[in-house]
Amino acid sequence: MLLKRLREEVLEANLELVRKGLVLYTFGNASGVDREQGLVVIKPSGVDYDVLKAEDMVVTDLNGRVVEGTLRPSSDLDTHTLLYREFVKIGGVVHTHSEFATGFAQAGMEIPAFGTTHADYFHGPVPVSLPLTDEAIHGRYVHETGLAIVARFQGSPAIDPMAVPACLVAGHAPFVWGKSAAEAAYHAVVLEAIAKMAYRTLTLKPSAGEVSQALLDRHYLRKHGGNATYGQN
Amino acid sequence: MLLKRLREEVLEANLELVRKGLVLYTFGNASGVDREQGLVVIKPSGVDYDVLKAEDMVVTDLNGRVVEGTLRPSSDLDTHTLLYREFVKIGGVVHTHSEFATGFAQAGMEIPAFGTTHADYFHGPVPVSLPLTDEAIHGRYVHETGLAIVARFQGSPAIDPMAVPACLVAGHAPFVWGKSAAEAAYHAVVLEAIAKMAYRTLTLKPSAGEVSQALLDRHYLRKHGGNATYGQN
Amino acid sequence: MLLKRLREEVLEANLELVRKGLVLYTFGNASGVDREQGLVVIKPSGVDYDVLKAEDMVVTDLNGRVVEGTLRPSSDLDTHTLLYREFVKIGGVVHTHSEFATGFAQAGMEIPAFGTTHADYFHGPVPVSLPLTDEAIHGRYVHETGLAIVARFQGSPAIDPMAVPACLVAGHAPFVWGKSAAEAAYHAVVLEAIAKMAYRTLTLKPSAGEVSQALLDRHYLRKHGGNATYGQN
Amino acid sequence: MLLKRLREEVLEANLELVRKGLVLYTFGNASGVDREQGLVVIKPSGVDYDVLKAEDMVVTDLNGRVVEGTLRPSSDLDTHTLLYREFVKIGGVVHTHSEFATGFAQAGMEIPAFGTTHADYFHGPVPVSLPLTDEAIHGRYVHETGLAIVARFQGSPAIDPMAVPACLVAGHAPFVWGKSAAEAAYHAVVLEAIAKMAYRTLTLKPSAGEVSQALLDRHYLRKHGGNATYGQN
Repeated sequence: MLLKRLREEVLEANLELVRKGLVLYTFGNASGVDREQGLVVIKPSGVDYDVLKAEDMVVTDLNGRVVEGTLRPSSDLDTHTLLYREFVKIGGVVHTHSEFATGFAQAGMEIPAFGTTHADYFHGPVPVSLPLTDEAIHGRYVHETGLAIVARFQGSPAIDPMAVPACLVAGHAPFVWGKSAAEAAYHAVVLEAIAKMAYRTLTLKPSAGEVSQALLDRHYLRKHGGNATYGQN
Repeated sequence: MLLKRLREEVLEANLELVRKGLVLYTFGNASGVDREQGLVVIKPSGVDYDVLKAEDMVVTDLNGRVVEGTLRPSSDLDTHTLLYREFVKIGGVVHTHSEFATGFAQAGMEIPAFGTTHADYFHGPVPVSLPLTDEAIHGRYVHETGLAIVARFQGSPAIDPMAVPACLVAGHAPFVWGKSAAEAAYHAVVLEAIAKMAYRTLTLKPSAGEVSQALLDRHYLRKHGGNATYGQN
Repeated sequence: MLLKRLREEVLEANLELVRKGLVLYTFGNASGVDREQGLVVIKPSGVDYDVLKAEDMVVTDLNGRVVEGTLRPSSDLDTHTLLYREFVKIGGVVHTHSEFATGFAQAGMEIPAFGTTHADYFHGPVPVSLPLTDEAIHGRYVHETGLAIVARFQGSPAIDPMAVPACLVAGHAPFVWGKSAAEAAYHAVVLEAIAKMAYRTLTLKPSAGEVSQALLDRHYLRKHGGNATYGQN
Repeated sequence: MLLKRLREEVLEANLELVRKGLVLYTFGNASGVDREQGLVVIKPSGVDYDVLKAEDMVVTDLNGRVVEGTLRPSSDLDTHTLLYREFVKIGGVVHTHSEFATGFAQAGMEIPAFGTTHADYFHGPVPVSLPLTDEAIHGRYVHETGLAIVARFQGSPAIDPMAVPACLVAGHAPFVWGKSAAEAAYHAVVLEAIAKMAYRTLTLKPSAGEVSQALLDRHYLRKHGGNATYGQN
């Protein structure tokens, strides 16, 4: 069996989404990539989380062709593989319909950087994609979803996907990534928490302003980069 | 004992509502129909969920006459049986006062199709009935509740009850259905989730617009019909 | 030991508030009355729920004089006893700071009868008292809290405390009652549920209107009075 | 090992934050002080709560120099020590990003004293600091966070930190304190509850007014000071 350890990490990332209340029934999916072998491990489509096993994970190449596995991969596979091809430093991708982040995505609103919880993990607002055109929806829809995310990050000004590891897809829900499947799941959980806090802030005070660039930098760099001071490493 | 398997399925659908936090105390009820025998199995009225057994379920005909069972059937029985008579393809009905869907019903507001979570299960807004007239309330009230639902679906334009398997009853709460009692319960849980998301979207942005018809179609047909691509079947 | 069964019922009513998430730490209290003996059984003040035993309950007369018990009674005792003296048909009183009902009390807003969940238990809006005057606060404050409740029910038009078994005290929180301590606790749980639903309705649509008198009557009388049709009795 | 009992109390205060849902992953921290020895015991930085042991706690002096412990102390240490130096009667400090209190902090809004739940523990609004200047953020940021809190309490009119045991840091989250680490954690839990209630009150009625000074005094003094009447002491 290919990629035993990565399968277990991807399974665990999927289960973390359940434990933290981000997914309902079989909604949501997590994947991981092995860059050396050029292989992606992803959750199968529509299988109950409580019977999900590492060997159920589906292995595909970076173009989404199944290499190993008898189950059908997540229906969002083509978005995952596009992100792996375009964002070459990421190691894991997560997609959920978590309630508050999806509330913003449905409103077509980005999540402003209102506080240090946000700044600790997202070095700027969490952007929202443009709505997909009818042409894109009628075409390779799942692939186009990935293109809409990438277009948002390659816009002007460009956003570094390693510094802002999530995008809300308008009228849909968030896609989140990280250096590994585990980090992608962690970011998805934090994203839902900051979406909750931003929701409270905006409903209390619609004119609320973002934190200063100085505070955004201070907190982000406290947890990221060579001068990080948080934790035990 | 009649309909042993259906009783168990109906019991299980009722318990799923409890597990997912949709009901408080003895509120809520689920039923299933056996179309061949023309019999309905429904939860008894006001019995605690933690002592509810399959043999407590009440069996009635499609006009609500009790055929088997010593307990009084759910007080909402006449709405269930009317829906079975009018919506001839449905196999299960669920009624809850789940918090967010009821919030919309009390406001007399439909739930707009703001995103793909909605589109995956409801092929259009979840409609709200007209308020019942005093005459209807003073008459066969529970039956009239069903008529208000049916009138909403037979209005102009008509709504296909298999494509939009729920209706909010104004000033009351949702009724939800599906091909089976299990699917009706599943739809009730999804309905509450999309009501939550729509609530957040509307309180963030009261002018939020629905997804395009193309996106609504794409997601709905991804999970329904002959070309469905979701899951393992 | 006096009133063994009532102590157990009062203990159980207090624990039901914990199980349903209505109280934090030692907040909240429930009591019951024995009308024949003219004795009240109430939770002691500030004792942790997880060590609370039936024998810790304090027994007082209807004027709040301790008859049996070594612990100090709930600091809200004088409100409870006043309600027992004035509302002569009630058998139990509950006070909580449950989150949504308290949100209304703090806003000085009654809870409108927006739907049938409300109508099933409260035959009209749940009223809010006037704020207490400085004189009342400086005087017998806890007693005055009870007077503010009673004044609201004896106002014009008068409200029947058996038909609307709760009052929000402005700037404070709800007091709830019923035929027994168990029913008072049940009503407190339902009150929080309808406060939640009314909150969603009002934030979705500030101009939302109440249900018709016909619907209010229909649902209230479905569960109350000689012609009740709900449940197995 | 120094300060065995205090370590256990500080560990327990940290775990109470987890049990009450105030912290996500490794967010949040609690500390306690031994005034006689001039030593602070604080949670280590970024260690999972479920493996946290009393011996992992870090002991520092009042200037934040580590005296005992092999792990790096919480990254918020300098705020804790400043508060211990400036607020000389406090015995414990807690910092969380609890959801509703953080919602207010991000909006730059104080939490008004809307009700008696608030008045029981906070003798006035819970204030919000000024945003930190870029200079402060670029300098000794964590120390400056403490200075912003102290400046808010020493402003005009001054606030007694023993009567209002919490401050929201603008664009960040709450810091909370008490006579001990246990009381600081208790206050953090109550703060989140009153933030929730105030959020509901403000979204129901943006013009809602605070309780009268008389009611604020009555409730605060009911639980605090020589004439307290709550509980069994």
